[in-house]
Amino acid sequence: MTAEDVLREIKGKVRATVPPSIDVSDVEFEGALVVLYTKHPHKFAEKEDLIKQLAKMLQKRIVVRPDSSVITQEETAEKKIRQIIPEEAEITNIYFQPDVGEVTIEVMKPGVAIGKQGKYLNEIRKKVNWSPKINRTPPMQSKTVHDIRGFLRMMSDERKEILKKVGRRLHRGVSSGEKYVRVTGLGGYRQVGRSCSLLTTQDSKILIDVGVDVSGDDSSTPYLHLPEVLPLETIDAVVITHAHLDHSGLVPVLYKYGYDGPIYCTPPTRDMMTLLQMDYLKVAAAEAKKIPYSGEHVREVIKHCIPINYGDTTDITPDVRLTFHNAGHILGSSIAHFHIGEGLYNIAFSGDIKYEKTWLFNPAVNHFPRLEAMFLESTYGGKDDFQPSRQEATDHLREIIKRCLKNKGKIIIPVFAVGRSQEVMIVLEQLMADKEIPQVPVYLDGMIWEATAIHTAYPEYLNNKLRAQAFQKGKNPLLSDIFVRVDGHETRQKIINDPESCLVLATSGMMVGGPVMEYFKAWAEDEKNMIVFVGYQAEGSFGRRVQKGWRDILITSGGNNQTLKLNMMVETVDGFSGHSDRRQLMNFVNNMSPRPDRLCFGHGEEVKCLDLSSSIHKKYNMNTMALKNLETTRFV
Amino acid sequence: MTAEDVLREIKGKVRATVPPSIDVSDVEFEGALVVLYTKHPHKFAEKEDLIKQLAKMLQKRIVVRPDSSVITQEETAEKKIRQIIPEEAEITNIYFQPDVGEVTIEVMKPGVAIGKQGKYLNEIRKKVNWSPKINRTPPMQSKTVHDIRGFLRMMSDERKEILKKVGRRLHRGVSSGEKYVRVTGLGGYRQVGRSCSLLTTQDSKILIDVGVDVSGDDSSTPYLHLPEVLPLETIDAVVITHAHLDHSGLVPVLYKYGYDGPIYCTPPTRDMMTLLQMDYLKVAAAEAKKIPYSGEHVREVIKHCIPINYGDTTDITPDVRLTFHNAGHILGSSIAHFHIGEGLYNIAFSGDIKYEKTWLFNPAVNHFPRLEAMFLESTYGGKDDFQPSRQEATDHLREIIKRCLKNKGKIIIPVFAVGRSQEVMIVLEQLMADKEIPQVPVYLDGMIWEATAIHTAYPEYLNNKLRAQAFQKGKNPLLSDIFVRVDGHETRQKIINDPESCLVLATSGMMVGGPVMEYFKAWAEDEKNMIVFVGYQAEGSFGRRVQKGWRDILITSGGNNQTLKLNMMVETVDGFSGHSDRRQLMNFVNNMSPRPDRLCFGHGEEVKCLDLSSSIHKKYNMNTMALKNLETTRFV
Repeated sequence: MTAEDVLREIKGKVRATVPPSIDVSDVEFEGALVVLYTKHPHKFAEKEDLIKQLAKMLQKRIVVRPDSSVITQEETAEKKIRQIIPEEAEITNIYFQPDVGEVTIEVMKPGVAIGKQGKYLNEIRKKVNWSPKINRTPPMQSKTVHDIRGFLRMMSDERKEILKKVGRRLHRGVSSGEKYVRVTGLGGYRQVGRSCSLLTTQDSKILIDVGVDVSGDDSSTPYLHLPEVLPLETIDAVVITHAHLDHSGLVPVLYKYGYDGPIYCTPPTRDMMTLLQMDYLKVAAAEAKKIPYSGEHVREVIKHCIPINYGDTTDITPDVRLTFHNAGHILGSSIAHFHIGEGLYNIAFSGDIKYEKTWLFNPAVNHFPRLEAMFLESTYGGKDDFQPSRQEATDHLREIIKRCLKNKGKIIIPVFAVGRSQEVMIVLEQLMADKEIPQVPVYLDGMIWEATAIHTAYPEYLNNKLRAQAFQKGKNPLLSDIFVRVDGHETRQKIINDPESCLVLATSGMMVGGPVMEYFKAWAEDEKNMIVFVGYQAEGSFGRRVQKGWRDILITSGGNNQTLKLNMMVETVDGFSGHSDRRQLMNFVNNMSPRPDRLCFGHGEEVKCLDLSSSIHKKYNMNTMALKNLETTRFV
Repeated sequence: MTAEDVLREIKGKVRATVPPSIDVSDVEFEGALVVLYTKHPHKFAEKEDLIKQLAKMLQKRIVVRPDSSVITQEETAEKKIRQIIPEEAEITNIYFQPDVGEVTIEVMKPGVAIGKQGKYLNEIRKKVNWSPKINRTPPMQSKTVHDIRGFLRMMSDERKEILKKVGRRLHRGVSSGEKYVRVTGLGGYRQVGRSCSLLTTQDSKILIDVGVDVSGDDSSTPYLHLPEVLPLETIDAVVITHAHLDHSGLVPVLYKYGYDGPIYCTPPTRDMMTLLQMDYLKVAAAEAKKIPYSGEHVREVIKHCIPINYGDTTDITPDVRLTFHNAGHILGSSIAHFHIGEGLYNIAFSGDIKYEKTWLFNPAVNHFPRLEAMFLESTYGGKDDFQPSRQEATDHLREIIKRCLKNKGKIIIPVFAVGRSQEVMIVLEQLMADKEIPQVPVYLDGMIWEATAIHTAYPEYLNNKLRAQAFQKGKNPLLSDIFVRVDGHETRQKIINDPESCLVLATSGMMVGGPVMEYFKAWAEDEKNMIVFVGYQAEGSFGRRVQKGWRDILITSGGNNQTLKLNMMVETVDGFSGHSDRRQLMNFVNNMSPRPDRLCFGHGEEVKCLDLSSSIHKKYNMNTMALKNLETTRFV
C-alpha cells in the first residue's frame, strides 16, 4: 500500500465517522500526524471523544487544525485575544505559527489567562479559530529561541510542505522481505567525539547523532561517505540525542550533501544545537579553519526539525517508532528509544547520560516499557573512573577559589556553554550567597548567557527543585546579579586588563578556540592566576595538554604561532561532569528495567569501552560488546 | 590522477623507450594489462628484454598485440598455419580470439608443433601476425568449453570494449582519505548456502561469491539489497572462488540489476559455473520455480569474465590486487587472496577447501607471501566432524555396493555434477578394474559427462598423478568404457525400466531437483535398491530428509504431490567430501604460513562456526570470530 492509498483509506474512515454537521475540508499527513482541517475547529474542540475515537480507529495521532479560510488574520486575532484575556494575566508576548494554526500567548500568570475550565481558551478558539497555547513568560529572553520562532513563522509555507513530504514517506508501508535490525558505527566508537550511528532495518535507514570531533585532527568527521550511508537521500530520519557538537555538530552538513528528510530531537536540543552550530561556524571562521557548512545549512536543519518532547512516541519510518527519555546530561538531552516492527525489537541509544540528580536535571531514565538492546556511553567507564560527589566537588572548588582569590588572582574556568556552565553558576552563586568565597564578579563569556536563557525557556526540562525556582527572579540562582555578561571584544579587553580579582566562565570547554583562549593567553604567564577544569578534556584537545601540565605551550591563532610559558596554577575539579562515572554506569545497568539482552559500548576511549564491556559482562552476565567504528552488528 | 592521465603518461614512456624502428600504433588498458598494439609483432617477440624493461619501468603487466591492420584474415591464416606445422603434430583444432589477437592450435603432439626453440611459432608470428598458442588436444570434447569460446569470438568487439572500460576504471587512482578494510557478511555465515561477502576499502567495493541457497526456502538469496551493496553499479569487482551454485549461482542476477563490471575467477570456474547456471535455469523451469535470471544474464557473465590462473597476481581495483591459489575442492576452486593498499593489509577467502590430496586435486594452499586475516569455511568444523580417509571411504563404498548388487539391486548415487562425481567415478573404475565389485554399467546422468569433459580440458588444474594420465586414453580413469552417458529422457526411461543391476550417478547432489529424482521416484519403493549419499546434504534439502531416514516422503513435481513409501536402503559414505573435516581444518590453520592475526569463520551451520572459532582460539591462541550475515567487521 502506498502513502496515497493509506491516506485515501483514512479520509474515507474520517468522513464516515465525523457527523455531517462538522466540516472536514481536508485530511493530510504532517510528519507522523494525521491532520484534519475543518471550518469548525471549536465544534471539534467541544467533542473530545470524537478525536479519541478517530485516533483509536486509525491507530494514528490526530490533530485538528482550522481551515485557512476561517482563520482570523493575525493582527485582528491578536487584538481579539487581548480583549478576551484579563489584563491581570499580564500578556508579554503573542506569536502565531501559521504552519500549524497555533497561537502561543506568553503571560506572567497562566492560571488567570486560561480561566475557569479553560473558559478564555474556548472563547479564543471560537472567535479567531486559531488553537491557543498559554505559556508562562520566561524570566530571561533567549535570542535564539526568539529567532528560531520568527524564522519558522517566515518559513511556514515551506515547513508545511516538508512535514507533508515526511508524512507521505513515513506512510509508504512496510516491505514483505526478511526482517533485520542492525547498527553500524560511523563515529564515536572506542573514542570520544564525532558520535554517529546508523540503524538499519529492512525498511529504515536512521542516523543517530552526527557529531564532529572538536579536538579536531584529520579524522574529525564521522564516516558519512561509506557505501551503506550514501546517497544521503536514502536516509529516512536523523535523530539527535543532545546538542553538544560531538553529537550534533555536523547535522547541517547532511543538507549540504543532499539529505532532505527530518531531524528528530527535543525542543531544547533544537535550539541549543542551533546556537552551538552557529557558534562553531563563527569560531571556525575566526580561526581560519576549514568550514564544512554554512548558515544556510543550519537553517535547513531548523526547517526540517520535528521537535518531540520526552515521553511522546512518534512514528519516524514505516517500521520504527521513536520515544525520547531524559538523559540527565544537559538541557533536553535524551535517550533515544526505538521500537521496531510492531514488537519485533526495541533498542535504545543512551547519548550521554548522568545517572545522578544534579543541580540542573533529574537522573537519566533507565526504565522502559520494553528493551532488548542498549547502546551506552563509556566516557568514564574505566575501572578507576570514580568521580567525587557533587558536594565533594563543591568543597574542592571552594578551597581552590579561596586560595587564588586570597592572592588577588584571576580564575578561568573553561566550560561548555551548555550544561557545565549552568551547574558551576549555581554552585558559585550558592558559595557567594553563603559567603564561603569572596564576592567577585563572575563573567560569562561566549554564549553562556544565551545558553542560560534557553534553560529558562524550557523549565519543564529542569529538575523538580529548579523548575519551582525558575520563574522567581529572587530565587532562580541563574538570574543572580553576580553574573556579568561579556557582550563583546571591548568588554573582554577591559576585564583582561582590570587588575581586580574575578572569575571567568568562558567557552570552549576543551580550549579548542573560543573566548577562553583570550583570557588564557593574557593570564597564563602569571603564577597568581589559576585555570580550573571542570569538564572532560578529550585526548588531543588543547585543554588536555594544559591539564596534563605542559609548561611551554604553542598557540596558533590567525596563522601566527606564539609560545607561552605557562605559570598559572592548573587545577582540575572532578565531580561536575555531566557524564556518569564508573559506579553510576554500573548502577544504571544494574537498575535497568527490563534488563536488555545486549549492551553495546561506545563514546569512550578504547580501553574504557573494553573495560566497561567486560566488567558488566562478568558482573551481570550480560551479552556485551564494544563496537568499532565502521563495524556493523546485527540484533535481529 | 585520472585513468586518462595515467594512460597519457604510459604512452609517453613507451614511445620514449621503444626504438623508432618498431611501430607502436596504440597503447590501451585491457583490464589490468597495458596492451601495446604494433604493426611489428614479430620484432617485439624477438626483443623479450624490451617488454621486461617496459614492465619494470611502468610497474604494469605488458602485452603486445598485433595491430588489426597487419593481422592476416582468419581463413588465410589457418591455411598458412597448417602449412607451417608438420603433419605429424596432428592438428585437431585451430581457433582464433580476435579480441586479444591470439590463435590457439590444438594438437596431439605439442612438442612437434612448437618445433626446436619455438621455430614454428616464430614462423607463424612472422607470416600471419597472430600470437600462436599450442595446446594439447583434450581427450574429451567439452561442449561448454567449445560454446564459450565460440561465443567470446562472436562478441570480440564488445569484449574489447568491456576490458577497456574495466581498465579505465581500475586505473582511476586512489583517494587520499583515511584507509580502512572491512568485510560484510551478505550470505553463507553461520549457514551453508548463498555464500556472499562484501570487501570494502576506502577505494573499493568487491563482492566475493554470489551464491544461491539451493535447499531453497525464502531466504535463499544473499542480502544484495542492503544499502551498502546498492546500487550495484558501485561495485568494482566480483570474485568467484569456485563454480558450485552456493558460490556462483546468482552471479548472473547482478547483470539483471545493473552491475556491468568484471567477474574474476579461474578459467575452469568460468566454464563450470556457466554449465551449472544454465542447468539451474533448466531445472528451475522444469519445476516451475521462480527463475531469478535468464540465459541472457549468464552470457553477460561470460562476456565480463576475466579468467585468472592460479598464482597470477592482478590489479582489480586501484588499491586491491587479487591472486588465486588452489583450494583442492573442485576443478578450478580457489582461495582468493587480496593484497590491499601497497602493503596495508592482506586478506584471503578460503571458499571451500580440501586440505588433503584427493583422487583429483592437490591439497589446498596454506602458504602465502603475506597474510593478516583469513575467512575460512566450517562445513565440517564441529568438534565431532571427523571423516574417514579416502581409503576407508572406498572400502565402505565397496562393501555396500557388493551387498546391493548381490541381490540384483540398483544403486543411485546423488552427486554434484562437479567434483564428487569425478572422484566417485575414479573409485568405481578402480574397484571394477580390480574386480572388487561386479562389472555393471555406471550411468552418468545430468551434466556429469559434460563436467568430466571440462576436467579433461584443464589438466593443469588436476593433481600431479591424474595430470600425467589425462591424455592417455587407456590410463585416464575418467575415460573408461564402464561409464555410459545418459543423453536424454528416452535413455533414462530405458534404464529405469531395465531389470538389470546398475549404478547411477545423477544430479542434483542434494536431491533438490534434477534427473536423480526420476530414478529415486522409480526405485525408492523397492527394498532391493539402494541410495548412497557421498556429499554434504544441507539442512532443509530433500536429500537431508531422505538421509535422515524419513520413510513417507512427499514429492512435488510439476505441481503434483505424490507420497512415496521409501523402502530402499539408505546409506551414507563419508570420506568423499570435497570439504576438509575438523582435523584437516585444524591442521590447515596450524600449518599456515604466515599465521594470520585474525580468522573469521563462515560456511557452516551456526554451531560448527562457533565451535571451530572457539577451538582454534583456545588451541592456537588466535583472534577468531564467527561473523553473522548482515554484520560488518573491520580489519584496518
